[in-house]
Amino acid sequence: MDSSQFSDFIKPRDIAVNDRFWGAFMERVRTKVIPYQWKALNDAIPGAEPSYCIRNFKLAAELTHPELDYGIPRDIGFGGMVFQDSDLAKWIEAAAYSLVWHPDPALEKTLDETIAIICNAQQGDGYLDTYYIINGLEKRFTNLKDNHELYCMGHYIEAAVAYYEATGKRRLMDAMIRYVDCVDKHIGAGEGKLHGYPGHEIAEMALVRLYAATGDGKHLKLAKYFIDQRGQAPLYFEEETGRNGNTFYWKDSYVKYQYYQAGKPVRDQHTAEGHAVRAVYLYSGMADVARLTGDEELFAACKDLFANITEKQMYITGAIGQSAYGEAFSYDYDLPNDTVYAETCAAIGLAFFARRMASIAPRGEYADVIEKALFNGIISGMALDGESFFYVNPLEVLPEASLKDRRMRHVKVERQKWFGCACCPPNLARILASLGSYVHSVAKGAVYTHLYLGSEAKLSPAGKEVRIKIETGYPWDGQINIGFALEGKSAFSYGFRIPGWCGSVAVKLNGADAAYTLRDGYALIDREWSGGDKLTVTLDMPVNLMETNPKVRQNSGKLAFTRGPLVYCFEEKDNGKELFKLRAGEPVDFKVRYEKDLLEGLCTLSFTGKREKDWQGGALYRKQGEAEYEDRELLLIPYYAWANRGAGEMTVWINK
Amino acid sequence: MDSSQFSDFIKPRDIAVNDRFWGAFMERVRTKVIPYQWKALNDAIPGAEPSYCIRNFKLAAELTHPELDYGIPRDIGFGGMVFQDSDLAKWIEAAAYSLVWHPDPALEKTLDETIAIICNAQQGDGYLDTYYIINGLEKRFTNLKDNHELYCMGHYIEAAVAYYEATGKRRLMDAMIRYVDCVDKHIGAGEGKLHGYPGHEIAEMALVRLYAATGDGKHLKLAKYFIDQRGQAPLYFEEETGRNGNTFYWKDSYVKYQYYQAGKPVRDQHTAEGHAVRAVYLYSGMADVARLTGDEELFAACKDLFANITEKQMYITGAIGQSAYGEAFSYDYDLPNDTVYAETCAAIGLAFFARRMASIAPRGEYADVIEKALFNGIISGMALDGESFFYVNPLEVLPEASLKDRRMRHVKVERQKWFGCACCPPNLARILASLGSYVHSVAKGAVYTHLYLGSEAKLSPAGKEVRIKIETGYPWDGQINIGFALEGKSAFSYGFRIPGWCGSVAVKLNGADAAYTLRDGYALIDREWSGGDKLTVTLDMPVNLMETNPKVRQNSGKLAFTRGPLVYCFEEKDNGKELFKLRAGEPVDFKVRYEKDLLEGLCTLSFTGKREKDWQGGALYRKQGEAEYEDRELLLIPYYAWANRGAGEMTVWINK
Repeated sequence: MDSSQFSDFIKPRDIAVNDRFWGAFMERVRTKVIPYQWKALNDAIPGAEPSYCIRNFKLAAELTHPELDYGIPRDIGFGGMVFQDSDLAKWIEAAAYSLVWHPDPALEKTLDETIAIICNAQQGDGYLDTYYIINGLEKRFTNLKDNHELYCMGHYIEAAVAYYEATGKRRLMDAMIRYVDCVDKHIGAGEGKLHGYPGHEIAEMALVRLYAATGDGKHLKLAKYFIDQRGQAPLYFEEETGRNGNTFYWKDSYVKYQYYQAGKPVRDQHTAEGHAVRAVYLYSGMADVARLTGDEELFAACKDLFANITEKQMYITGAIGQSAYGEAFSYDYDLPNDTVYAETCAAIGLAFFARRMASIAPRGEYADVIEKALFNGIISGMALDGESFFYVNPLEVLPEASLKDRRMRHVKVERQKWFGCACCPPNLARILASLGSYVHSVAKGAVYTHLYLGSEAKLSPAGKEVRIKIETGYPWDGQINIGFALEGKSAFSYGFRIPGWCGSVAVKLNGADAAYTLRDGYALIDREWSGGDKLTVTLDMPVNLMETNPKVRQNSGKLAFTRGPLVYCFEEKDNGKELFKLRAGEPVDFKVRYEKDLLEGLCTLSFTGKREKDWQGGALYRKQGEAEYEDRELLLIPYYAWANRGAGEMTVWINK
Repeated sequence: MDSSQFSDFIKPRDIAVNDRFWGAFMERVRTKVIPYQWKALNDAIPGAEPSYCIRNFKLAAELTHPELDYGIPRDIGFGGMVFQDSDLAKWIEAAAYSLVWHPDPALEKTLDETIAIICNAQQGDGYLDTYYIINGLEKRFTNLKDNHELYCMGHYIEAAVAYYEATGKRRLMDAMIRYVDCVDKHIGAGEGKLHGYPGHEIAEMALVRLYAATGDGKHLKLAKYFIDQRGQAPLYFEEETGRNGNTFYWKDSYVKYQYYQAGKPVRDQHTAEGHAVRAVYLYSGMADVARLTGDEELFAACKDLFANITEKQMYITGAIGQSAYGEAFSYDYDLPNDTVYAETCAAIGLAFFARRMASIAPRGEYADVIEKALFNGIISGMALDGESFFYVNPLEVLPEASLKDRRMRHVKVERQKWFGCACCPPNLARILASLGSYVHSVAKGAVYTHLYLGSEAKLSPAGKEVRIKIETGYPWDGQINIGFALEGKSAFSYGFRIPGWCGSVAVKLNGADAAYTLRDGYALIDREWSGGDKLTVTLDMPVNLMETNPKVRQNSGKLAFTRGPLVYCFEEKDNGKELFKLRAGEPVDFKVRYEKDLLEGLCTLSFTGKREKDWQGGALYRKQGEAEYEDRELLLIPYYAWANRGAGEMTVWINK
């Protein structure tokens, strides 16, 4: 681990996003998702399963401070899932980012009032989890494996720091510092403490984020403890299960404690296993702690895990988690397109992990994965009207199979309004609302640009403020104009990513061909920059026909189509039923058309492909004959936009 | 339905099988399976889950006749599944056939003693199901949907008639006639009766078989009632569930009452749905009743169902039931090779159904399916040593997937010793032990030969006994010598099947080219036959490369290899790991070799195919490049023989 390569991603407040593509998604989050979620959290959506989330906090506050009256009957009980608290935290986090991007005093007032309720629920010793406050505090910390206290704490830390960074208001952050103190008192290395760690990870990276805000070493120390202790013998989850009579849901499974990434110490883990969201949240925390503590061994495990995911277990859309059973990774080179799980949250978590790896070393392989996940497997989770969501993001859908085949029952053909377990929509909201913070990272004397979003950022790579303005029609065209505004001059190295999908790039500096060094997927220009400097990067953006490593049996003989960062797909709406009869042939006549009125505006691809003809007669098998095809104009749309025109078949991969 | 085409299959006692291929299977059943099952039924297999079957009968007999003492504690309770009785019935049936094929006084004595115990358990009113005799007779007939009384009755009728036909002994048959009388009193059309029918079918075809033995019309009438009443509104199973507080396991499924083929009247069913074994048992009974009652509408439903299965839902091995969930059919053109269920018993049931259809009309499509199932998806269920068994008969196996992928956990990579629910081994035993009865059927003035087994049968198509002797090396070579022995002359039409896989046939009669008429897959010679006539049928038996209807997405671009009736497969043992990397190419140099020391003697196929090479480097995706292949000598063995040399990958289909 070469600490001279470390860089810090910028904060949302240091960048104004003004991007045609992403701006639309961020606006959907701001104007649709955040208000809709607020209603959901308040059980105000007719016909939807209630969330109970706000009600739980109000009830917990009333029980903690009997003089308070939010109008909640005191015997009504806890509602929703054991981790219900986390939904509100994700909403606060997303709303906090949106305040940065679009100030909104009414929303800020709602947030302050909500934070007041949360803080009123906090116990004298700092404890703050409504499930146990309502159901009985004597049972707290008795099921770290499954009852999500530390998961909820992690999400509240994320929310608290985001809100502090957005508004400067400390109330929620101070409450979380007290909660962490409480946890610290009960869980950790010392004698008499529980030697436990979270069943669902996120606290690890959240504590690192808290440490960045507070500078208090005990926050980093607790994150490191959770990581180091995980999977150590004797196994805490096993002891806890025996001691407290908890259920071990994965007893009869192959995955066992690796469902929680706790089957062995994390440094001994080199293959992504178990629940995919938990896994990438853990790996994100591991990368954070590795960087901050200079832990080479931990970083080596991160690199192995990242390589395992991206070289052996990742869909071409950046989606991960092949198996619905356990919402989990399956095994190397197993990438079923139809029975896939590919949870939206898992792709988001992979972007978190990749971002942290990019912060340790600016290597194109990391930011390529962020970009791939964002443009494909993440935003496919949200309808273009911002009102419905996929948990599961399949690469092949047959409505009849989803209806009739139990193994595909989780694969929905249309996005759903809301979920009982509502993790994906708020997770989408928080990553999209904070997207600006993925654009650049800054090191001493260096700036790296990882994503090309229309934006204006202020950075200080060399002691002097520099404003970097990006203008681009990305992902529809590959020209990126990068302007530098500063007073006088500033010498620093500017690195900008050349995406892995791009075969050819042209770089001009102030109109003339620019000299640059290519290193690890970044073009580097180390010079003294002046106000008014203009860099023009033109990424060649042809249609690429992609194939999969022959070790992946599910994609043998199949091709997918990409252009720039976007994976494309075939929908029934454009290409008829029985998409498995399509054949790519050897396409020579690709047409790329920007259609402003289609699906909020996007580029379609089309080419003359083939479609296998039906046989004469009803035989199911026959001696090999001459297959008959008809030429067909095939039309593809970007994968993220699928299922926005009603239910139908879809596929990313077709036969050659 | 043309009743002039009706024919009756011969009884086991009228044919002596002496076939190199099938004789070995029948000997395994006689010398391994039947003795092993007997031990299992008596809980005498160390380490195996007890069956409790004989114990249940002894206990029921003691409870019925308190003076009896079989040494079973009277409070020990019922053991095993609710349908445990049926295991013993299947064993009796198989053992009865084996007595015909190989008389065995010790076995016959054991059978007589066992039948005595069964009969001692019978109630005064004829009732005979140990689950209710032991657990409380007041609950009998309260859960026809799930508690299998009528299923067990059906199996006992089959056993009773088989034993009567084998030995002339009526004791068990008389007991079953009394049980049917009891059922008749409680269930049926009359007022005050339950308007029910079996949850798991088999009684329908069993009652028809009883009718054939007794000539008593009420046995046919009850079979017809069960068929006609099934699925009629108001739905009996729904009423029964409500009345008795039973559980409806399929409430949340897509299949609902069609799991039991009871979602609508059987005449309205044109698509095979629900539990596959139940379905084909029902359809077998429907075909029986259609023939005996001249019911055109019922026969039309049978034809539709047969066509639906064989043209849209049958694996190339003759296996059926694509879905582990519900052990069921899924939907048209859905034929997953790896997550398949393909229960051995379902393929056996399909052979039952096809045999009954062939009895209505000798059409090659029916006997082709019997042959296909027998040579492939049925006998694959048994190890070549007769000591272990598959429930599930996949067409593609990856041991890692079976271990790690929950969706394939039912797909075992090695045959298992015995099962808690032991339906497949005894079902295999009863079909194999009675295989001679599938060879010929006889109509007035006509004989049809459906299967080519070395055998000698006695038949009387035209009032005079004719002995037909078949000698053949089938399925390894296609020459079949058919000799006719009779006194003097007899005029009848002799029809012999030209299998659907056979492109070219030579027929000689007494050494000279024979004239024959080809009709519906049978070659017909209508003449006056004399003792000593010799017919030589030579079926051309090349290797066939087979492909699947383009509507089956799982087999797009794939080929399977067959020779004669046998489907072949690739095993890891012969072709290395990662069989999905194999490519057929355009094979021109097939070698067919009989290997007498391999897997009990069989013909292997080999040819020069290809294997895709691994990529340089670790990328998971790349821009389409030139695929690289290496030539490989590929070796195939018959599918039925797979998994007899340890665990490993297997596939029937490979890419072109």
